[in-house]
Amino acid sequence: MILDRVLALHKAYEDGLAAATRALGCRGMSTNIRPDVTLASRLFDALREKTFDGVGVTREAYGRGEEIAHALVRAEAEKLGLEIKVDYAGNMYMTLPGSDRTLSQIILGSHLDSVPQGGNYDGAAGVICGMAVVAGMKQAGFAPKRDVTVMAIRAEEGGAWFNGFPGSRGALGSFPPANLAILRPDTGLSLEHHMRELGFDPEALRTGKKVLGPENVHAYLELHIEQGPVLDAEQIPVGLVTALPGNRRVRVGKVIGEWNHSGATPRAYRHDAALALAEFAHRLDLFWGELEAQGVPSVVTFCTIATTDQAGFGKVPGEIGFSLDVRAPEPATLDRIYAEIHRLVAEIEASRGVKFELSSGQESKPTPMDAGMREALRQSAEGLGIGYKVMPSGGGHDAAAFAQAGIPSAMVFVRNQNGSHTPLEAMRIEDFAEASTVIADWAMKASS
Amino acid sequence: MILDRVLALHKAYEDGLAAATRALGCRGMSTNIRPDVTLASRLFDALREKTFDGVGVTREAYGRGEEIAHALVRAEAEKLGLEIKVDYAGNMYMTLPGSDRTLSQIILGSHLDSVPQGGNYDGAAGVICGMAVVAGMKQAGFAPKRDVTVMAIRAEEGGAWFNGFPGSRGALGSFPPANLAILRPDTGLSLEHHMRELGFDPEALRTGKKVLGPENVHAYLELHIEQGPVLDAEQIPVGLVTALPGNRRVRVGKVIGEWNHSGATPRAYRHDAALALAEFAHRLDLFWGELEAQGVPSVVTFCTIATTDQAGFGKVPGEIGFSLDVRAPEPATLDRIYAEIHRLVAEIEASRGVKFELSSGQESKPTPMDAGMREALRQSAEGLGIGYKVMPSGGGHDAAAFAQAGIPSAMVFVRNQNGSHTPLEAMRIEDFAEASTVIADWAMKASS
Repeated sequence: MILDRVLALHKAYEDGLAAATRALGCRGMSTNIRPDVTLASRLFDALREKTFDGVGVTREAYGRGEEIAHALVRAEAEKLGLEIKVDYAGNMYMTLPGSDRTLSQIILGSHLDSVPQGGNYDGAAGVICGMAVVAGMKQAGFAPKRDVTVMAIRAEEGGAWFNGFPGSRGALGSFPPANLAILRPDTGLSLEHHMRELGFDPEALRTGKKVLGPENVHAYLELHIEQGPVLDAEQIPVGLVTALPGNRRVRVGKVIGEWNHSGATPRAYRHDAALALAEFAHRLDLFWGELEAQGVPSVVTFCTIATTDQAGFGKVPGEIGFSLDVRAPEPATLDRIYAEIHRLVAEIEASRGVKFELSSGQESKPTPMDAGMREALRQSAEGLGIGYKVMPSGGGHDAAAFAQAGIPSAMVFVRNQNGSHTPLEAMRIEDFAEASTVIADWAMKASS
Repeated sequence: MILDRVLALHKAYEDGLAAATRALGCRGMSTNIRPDVTLASRLFDALREKTFDGVGVTREAYGRGEEIAHALVRAEAEKLGLEIKVDYAGNMYMTLPGSDRTLSQIILGSHLDSVPQGGNYDGAAGVICGMAVVAGMKQAGFAPKRDVTVMAIRAEEGGAWFNGFPGSRGALGSFPPANLAILRPDTGLSLEHHMRELGFDPEALRTGKKVLGPENVHAYLELHIEQGPVLDAEQIPVGLVTALPGNRRVRVGKVIGEWNHSGATPRAYRHDAALALAEFAHRLDLFWGELEAQGVPSVVTFCTIATTDQAGFGKVPGEIGFSLDVRAPEPATLDRIYAEIHRLVAEIEASRGVKFELSSGQESKPTPMDAGMREALRQSAEGLGIGYKVMPSGGGHDAAAFAQAGIPSAMVFVRNQNGSHTPLEAMRIEDFAEASTVIADWAMKASS
């Protein structure tokens, strides 16, 4: 049934392409660069076809699907006559050379891996946008002063494959070396192993080698599908991102209570782990609702909740596991939420005689995008008459690594449907064309 | 580590036996029947030894462990010279014949199966109590007027093996025939299959054949460990049971919401199944607390809660499963709790845009025990100077099937430690001796 819906989405996409091409042709554009949407569409189709897994697409980081994607994009870059380089981490740089090669470059990039049974656009859209823009530059006879580089980044899907952004942080010299030992869930083999297998050099990540920095990157721009429902609900094609959220995560949380007979144990004698977690989750949800009412943005998600194998009908649960994902664009909001978490945990432990275990918790700081770039993008959108919304990002992206390295960075979101990380993920090619047109205009100006 | 605790419990039990034997010898008893605690202890030891599974005991219904238990008890009954019969359902009757065999019999019984990795006393204690009492009668030279029958019932552990009490309800002609098709979880084979394999006759259960009823059973008495913590906490050795609880069960409950990206989906766009269930569970728990404060007894347990395999870090849960076990000694209380459940479900479905699925729900009615028998047992305990508490049962037992068949029925609880359905389940042999002494006194009078 999911497959029927996926196929219907593909059909709708095909219909959209014709409309998008017409719209681009008709628009009275203030730019002379038109992204090559036909090229983009051909690449999207080829990518989907070659990495379709029967339900969605699967492009394993440092694995088969990602390799296929890199090969496809490389072939297109060769046709366009771009300069092609691959670094020690496997990232691919496809460059339209500028007239002054001493100037620092513009990078248009994103990642080519996907989650298992994911969608075709999460990541790939940013790389393909870059290809469409440089193709448009060539077609318009535009010669940039700065190098314009399309960067196909490796291994961004941390939850699915390897955490820590080995691609972007590898290139920027900021990858945590300990993460080289992370095992890919589908193979049980380490990041280091998979990198070596493809001929890359994990040692460079271990020693913090870097090939990108403020000295050679003038600006990093990443197009990405929104992944959330906001643009679609508000009927706006393009999002200009203010900040990537910080998060604090409890990946392996537990409540330990006491196993008891569910019939024979009166209320006063229980230490029910499941009801303790229910109270915790519900009261944290109420607190989140209060923040929301105050206009303070954040998200709170119990991604998984599960009693252990020992649980069964007729028993009071003595243990339950959970994972908790808290994100907010402001560090102070994360602090407020965690203060509430600790308050609730202490209160519930005391009242119910249970013990919470919150794993030490990964943490990332909120990362603002470059305000100057956002303003330039906003002016491009205004000039082109393309609708946009200034908005925070919900998910994390490679752009955070670039911004944290001191490189002016920005993100442009494309309206999309059905979220992401699902085979139902959808994007209208018309919307992709709108966002790419804004980016082409900006890139032309920024590289001139 | 669990094994160390189990072995320590065995050691404590051995020490207790010596003390119990001394205490029985010293008590100035108003009865001339002393249950044979040495025989009981030998049977408990043999049972544990032969059905120990490495951690606890496992006595599969209509399977290896239960067969071992029946063979052990049968050998003891043969030594005592009791009449032995086995019915079409595999229940074993071991009878000390009365002087007037036209009179209806007294049955002292319980079950010999256990849950997997369970304790040694849940069920077996009631059968062994019967053996100890009839042995005591023989040793005292007591000749009952009525037959005194020890009944070893089959397959009581419904959650673990087969639901519907094929042993007791089989004998009473009240087993639901559809349940013959239930599969034993460890073998995947049906009740009907397992019964035939041991030479019993499932057809008799299908046609509602009966061998027991008010016409030939004067009274049914079942000793059982309490399974709960009340007697232990209140330091009372014996419980006299007022009623077995009714229950309503949601064995396979679900909340269906919508899968979304946990970072990119703002609060207003979510239909989080996990938070909906957390709200439901916590608010039902609060309602239960109100009932408790009003002095209305009941128990409410979410035995299992689990997001589905599709869940993972970075996703808002679109589905979560649960099971819910509600019990109360009064039907009106079950009605009140279910009214609240339906009110909460409707409210949460509306406010969160989720859908609850409550499986049709098995239901059993509360069953009062015979007041006359309880009063007689109370007088025996008083006369013997043995501490007792009049209390409801939390769990269901075979005694409910006898009472529902119109047979005067009673239960005597023995104080126990660490609950039941766990290898840590414990019982002091001194407490077993106290409860068995009360029963011996009652059985002597009832069969005279």
